[in-house]
Amino acid sequence: EWGHTRTFNTIDWVREKSKDRDRHREIANKSRQSTVALLHSVSDAFSGWLLMLLVGLMSGALAGGIDIAAHWLTDMKEGLCLVGFWFNHEHCCWTSNETTFQERDRCPQWQSWAEIMTGTSEVLWLRGGALAYFVNYLMFLVWALLFALLAVTLVRAFAPYACGSGIPEIKTILSGFIIRGYLGKWTLIIKTITLVLAVSSGLSLGKEGPLVHVACCCANILCHLFTKYRKNEAKRREVLSAAAAVGVSVAFGAPIGGVLFSLEEVSYYFPLKTLWRSFFAALVAAFTLRSINPFGNSRLVLFYVEFHAPWHLVELGPFILLGIFGGLWGALFIRANIAWCRIRKSTRLGHYPVTEVLVVTALTGMLAYPNSYTRMGGAELISELFNDCSLLDSSQLCGYKQSNSTSGAGVGNGLADRPAGVGLYAALWQLALALVFKMMITVITFGMKVPSGLFIPSMAVGAIAGRLLGVGMEQLAYYNHDSAIFRGWCSPGADCITPGLYAMVGAAACLGGVTRMTVSLVVIMFELTGGLEYIVPLMAATMTSKWVADAFGREGIYEAHIRLNGYPFLEPKEEFQHSSLTADVMRPRRSDPPLAVLTQEGMTVEEVEALVESTHYSGFPVVVSQDSHRLVGFVLRRDLLISIDNARKRQEGVVGASQVVFTEHSPAPADDAPPPLRLRGIVDLSPFTVTDHTPMDITVDIFRKLGLRQCLVTHNGKLLGIITKKDILKHMANDCQQRPRLHPLQL
Amino acid sequence: EWGHTRTFNTIDWVREKSKDRDRHREIANKSRQSTVALLHSVSDAFSGWLLMLLVGLMSGALAGGIDIAAHWLTDMKEGLCLVGFWFNHEHCCWTSNETTFQERDRCPQWQSWAEIMTGTSEVLWLRGGALAYFVNYLMFLVWALLFALLAVTLVRAFAPYACGSGIPEIKTILSGFIIRGYLGKWTLIIKTITLVLAVSSGLSLGKEGPLVHVACCCANILCHLFTKYRKNEAKRREVLSAAAAVGVSVAFGAPIGGVLFSLEEVSYYFPLKTLWRSFFAALVAAFTLRSINPFGNSRLVLFYVEFHAPWHLVELGPFILLGIFGGLWGALFIRANIAWCRIRKSTRLGHYPVTEVLVVTALTGMLAYPNSYTRMGGAELISELFNDCSLLDSSQLCGYKQSNSTSGAGVGNGLADRPAGVGLYAALWQLALALVFKMMITVITFGMKVPSGLFIPSMAVGAIAGRLLGVGMEQLAYYNHDSAIFRGWCSPGADCITPGLYAMVGAAACLGGVTRMTVSLVVIMFELTGGLEYIVPLMAATMTSKWVADAFGREGIYEAHIRLNGYPFLEPKEEFQHSSLTADVMRPRRSDPPLAVLTQEGMTVEEVEALVESTHYSGFPVVVSQDSHRLVGFVLRRDLLISIDNARKRQEGVVGASQVVFTEHSPAPADDAPPPLRLRGIVDLSPFTVTDHTPMDITVDIFRKLGLRQCLVTHNGKLLGIITKKDILKHMANDCQQRPRLHPLQL
Repeated sequence: EWGHTRTFNTIDWVREKSKDRDRHREIANKSRQSTVALLHSVSDAFSGWLLMLLVGLMSGALAGGIDIAAHWLTDMKEGLCLVGFWFNHEHCCWTSNETTFQERDRCPQWQSWAEIMTGTSEVLWLRGGALAYFVNYLMFLVWALLFALLAVTLVRAFAPYACGSGIPEIKTILSGFIIRGYLGKWTLIIKTITLVLAVSSGLSLGKEGPLVHVACCCANILCHLFTKYRKNEAKRREVLSAAAAVGVSVAFGAPIGGVLFSLEEVSYYFPLKTLWRSFFAALVAAFTLRSINPFGNSRLVLFYVEFHAPWHLVELGPFILLGIFGGLWGALFIRANIAWCRIRKSTRLGHYPVTEVLVVTALTGMLAYPNSYTRMGGAELISELFNDCSLLDSSQLCGYKQSNSTSGAGVGNGLADRPAGVGLYAALWQLALALVFKMMITVITFGMKVPSGLFIPSMAVGAIAGRLLGVGMEQLAYYNHDSAIFRGWCSPGADCITPGLYAMVGAAACLGGVTRMTVSLVVIMFELTGGLEYIVPLMAATMTSKWVADAFGREGIYEAHIRLNGYPFLEPKEEFQHSSLTADVMRPRRSDPPLAVLTQEGMTVEEVEALVESTHYSGFPVVVSQDSHRLVGFVLRRDLLISIDNARKRQEGVVGASQVVFTEHSPAPADDAPPPLRLRGIVDLSPFTVTDHTPMDITVDIFRKLGLRQCLVTHNGKLLGIITKKDILKHMANDCQQRPRLHPLQL
Repeated sequence: EWGHTRTFNTIDWVREKSKDRDRHREIANKSRQSTVALLHSVSDAFSGWLLMLLVGLMSGALAGGIDIAAHWLTDMKEGLCLVGFWFNHEHCCWTSNETTFQERDRCPQWQSWAEIMTGTSEVLWLRGGALAYFVNYLMFLVWALLFALLAVTLVRAFAPYACGSGIPEIKTILSGFIIRGYLGKWTLIIKTITLVLAVSSGLSLGKEGPLVHVACCCANILCHLFTKYRKNEAKRREVLSAAAAVGVSVAFGAPIGGVLFSLEEVSYYFPLKTLWRSFFAALVAAFTLRSINPFGNSRLVLFYVEFHAPWHLVELGPFILLGIFGGLWGALFIRANIAWCRIRKSTRLGHYPVTEVLVVTALTGMLAYPNSYTRMGGAELISELFNDCSLLDSSQLCGYKQSNSTSGAGVGNGLADRPAGVGLYAALWQLALALVFKMMITVITFGMKVPSGLFIPSMAVGAIAGRLLGVGMEQLAYYNHDSAIFRGWCSPGADCITPGLYAMVGAAACLGGVTRMTVSLVVIMFELTGGLEYIVPLMAATMTSKWVADAFGREGIYEAHIRLNGYPFLEPKEEFQHSSLTADVMRPRRSDPPLAVLTQEGMTVEEVEALVESTHYSGFPVVVSQDSHRLVGFVLRRDLLISIDNARKRQEGVVGASQVVFTEHSPAPADDAPPPLRLRGIVDLSPFTVTDHTPMDITVDIFRKLGLRQCLVTHNGKLLGIITKKDILKHMANDCQQRPRLHPLQL
């Protein structure tokens, strides 16, 4: 059903940029003539910045709204605020004066569903006990299913493009393709609403990826306000690149990381001007979000972490282990998810998206509710796992024995390593189960017909694994501080191991394994902690993770989905390995009929029309004559048809037998012949050419760097064939299957 | 004298990269055949990372050494440590137990020159008083002159390339030119030594720019260890880009800022792979530097700042003022410095570089010594200006009146705004004088024949201006906290204005005005403070500064010096504005003799040799025949000469009358003719071509993006001319003088 609605068009970067330069030149020339024109030139120059400001403001505001709404709906699954149903749990208890700091999330105003029902139906035995648990469980599932149903129905009914994370499609769009409606206002509205619903339904998905899509929709819509951007696809893509940065900036509160994400992961053409503007927009968005203050703590970042202990060189061992885990998980996840998506595409499963979403939601809800670590939202879980245990912490993860006698080291550091207590052991078991559950459920969740991001689930998997390893290391260090490994840096009573740091490193490793982000990931994490101190562990883990994952397959999850969906995307990072010549890839092949060409003179209108009708090509080369085949230029099908059509209507004497002339000076026509149709104006006299002997790697390079749509192939000055982006993609896909595997360290 | 030693060569990026891909392919193919080859492939893949590690280690170590040596020599100008002459002032007093925290820089072990002389000559009246001051003054000058003399002599004698900051040349090299010896071992050794001397001599220069040069030298030298990088100019430039990042990373302790600096300011070709590796190298270097710990405080960053008060929206006004000041200063500095350098080049001044350095050093020393803010080193001054006054601070800049009665607001905040005392007023006068002095002396210092960086002097100017404005604002706020501007956010007894922040913003603005860095500058500053809080002020100031400076001229100081020295640099940022066609720029011009071409058959060895001898072109197009002029390929002069030479020596029967044949299948030679010389192997059969109708902006784009050296121009498949990078540069230089001025906001 999807294939039909899709309309792909490639843009020609060189022409678009050339158009923009012409526009500039015109404005600059005019601006010297009058004051009005000068003002126009200034406002034109300023419009880029204004647009960035608007994108930042709008995206920041939307992100804030999404955060608040998702919080509220997520809490609604568990209960209701009696003071006003529009308060979420935390907000509800703020208004209560009775709560202490310790029990901040327990207040009489907030009642679970079981409590509310007890209140109304007076069935006293419901209060507390197994039945109350059951009622809450049931209500949790009911709400989750309701949210999920609403989300998938809205997506299907109004905006099919609103599903998924949107990053693969945005990468494709930025590389120069047009997917109509993908960044339209309906997509924006529906994605915003369904994103809230999907997150609230408790599915194993995040809102970070879709926020990039939301920001790009905002940018695309706002582009319509400015002629400069509305009319030029290349200029608009500069804005979209910046919007991708804005998306990550509001998702994590990391503007610099966002810009680098856009640069490293999604963008295709990223001039310096865009770098600077992206940064501006990302900052505006981050500050808009902060002034909305959705997390209620005036922190800019999603996970604020503050660690107290430095790390030691020996710990690089476990950090690299986490990197290996992250890489393996990333590779495994991509394989499993793609396999599952293929099943969905090829079997009847794909015909029942609503049922699928409901079943997965029910499954997630049922399995997640009993375990407190899976019941809470992904972001909340990660926050808790990153947390460094202080003495006052009441979290189960901080259930250490209060020891100041066992080791005999005295009081010492208040944050010193302590032996694990019963609470912590219980938490570890729960976490282990949560890890297995998250790993499974994320594979089948990503790719369903609801908005779904991958950042949070991937990070959650890594954070759980990291925390488990961290606590393990901590206990090892506590009980073996005299062994060779720990001696010298981990004396009793010292705080040597920070499990929260392990969780952070694990999260980075897993996210790196799945997306293959590197620098931007480290920078995002750096912005979360705000210190250079932890960059080395993070980098060691993400690097290892990338190498390990690359050994199993070069593609990140986004590239894999691009290929799965068959988007025409020319990967800018991948090196072309096969040694073929352009002559092997161009069309026509040896067995094909010869290339359809126009001659610069001598063809009649009828002949030209017949040629155009008989083919579906979007353009035709013009040659000197059928004999010499020397290349003159290239003419677009659309221009040709329109020109002939216009001429037939308006120009007197143009009939089917009229000569079509592409030369500058045509020979005088015979006396009895109809007047010729002069079409030199529509010929592109500077088509890009390569020779048939050009190695394909150079041709691919030219296509990538210049953003070409097609290129003509010549031999000794004679036209031989044509090569298009699609030919290259097809060739690379074949090549991909045969080519020798290079060592992953190369990348 | 310089022009002669310079040997420029352009590299052809496309060919170099193609060569590297071939190499890769070969290794990959071999690696499937044997284990040894597989190991070789792995080691080859790993060599890039190993090289980065080595570059990071070496640069970090060198930077640490330079820091330590410069500290020691700078202190030596003032006195000597009696415990051991190899201790610097601070280090000397560490060993003393008598010092308190307050008087940490006064200890009996450290003696000024006057004290030492008193000690030895027993002339008691020398101790203290005017004569002691005079003796210290004199010794200060003598040492400064000695250091400067040594520096300039070493540079002139051993490595003329060691002078200046090196960044303009590195930009040129990275854009694809070869300057032999510029990154050699002699340059490295001499630059390292003379940098220490130049910094210690007290001249108004910094070591940050030259550190980039030093790091690039390290990288270039280390490249020789790896065949992959030794033999491929394009690959080596990837390493050099990373090294530029390393340089800034060690200069400021800002690895992320360093990478962005390399990306924004110096690099030409920066693939993602390089981004990741640069980041790695920058981190390694930063941590190497930290473990050497040259600042003695285990801080990574050069200026560590910690502010206590947030900024208020109203303060954006003064921040933007600082931006305007920075922009004006930047524009003025560039004009003045370039004018001075022109004078140096064109008049007899240029013939006496040693005298010039000595005179400037003497002038600097004489004027700087009496004012404590100019006497201290640039970095130290900036550090002091950035500092937020705490209550215990004994610095003169914190000479506030201890007021808790005037305002009646009680004790309140210990850091509250206070009225300025006598000490502060004195300091302000000194700062104002220092500002004027720094502005003047930097103009004539930058460009002398010693290693000299611009970062620190520019930042110092901005920091002084910022601090002055900051203190002014503080006093304004203190005395007018009821006025409309300050009411609502600056109540009495509150700490509302932080003069240190103004200094930081001013420093960023001035550096931005001079270098036109934007994002990287903000990120470097962000890494110094480690908080997102102050990004908005910094961004507002640097943006304003860039716009203001751009209004007076687009070029940053580095581009201006590139143009001054006539380096062939194709600016990647600048938009080409003129609307000309390739036909207008290519050679031969209409009045010129026709292009020298070879025909694919029919020319004799003698004819070819005569053609090559009669011209100085580095390559010749090969055409089908003199009549048709259809393009076959391109052959390099060097290849042609070598091949003919070899053939004459080794191949039997090749004489002057032999036919030179570039075709695949040549017609059988006449019976009596000597055997033909087949040279198809040396012909590049895929030369880049554009048509004569291609607009120049597209041609320039192709040159930039593909990194071409030359491109052939055709018309209807026939060769018409050739266009080289030099032609484009010449054309752009002409164009630059005529083209309409665009609004600076465009960039």
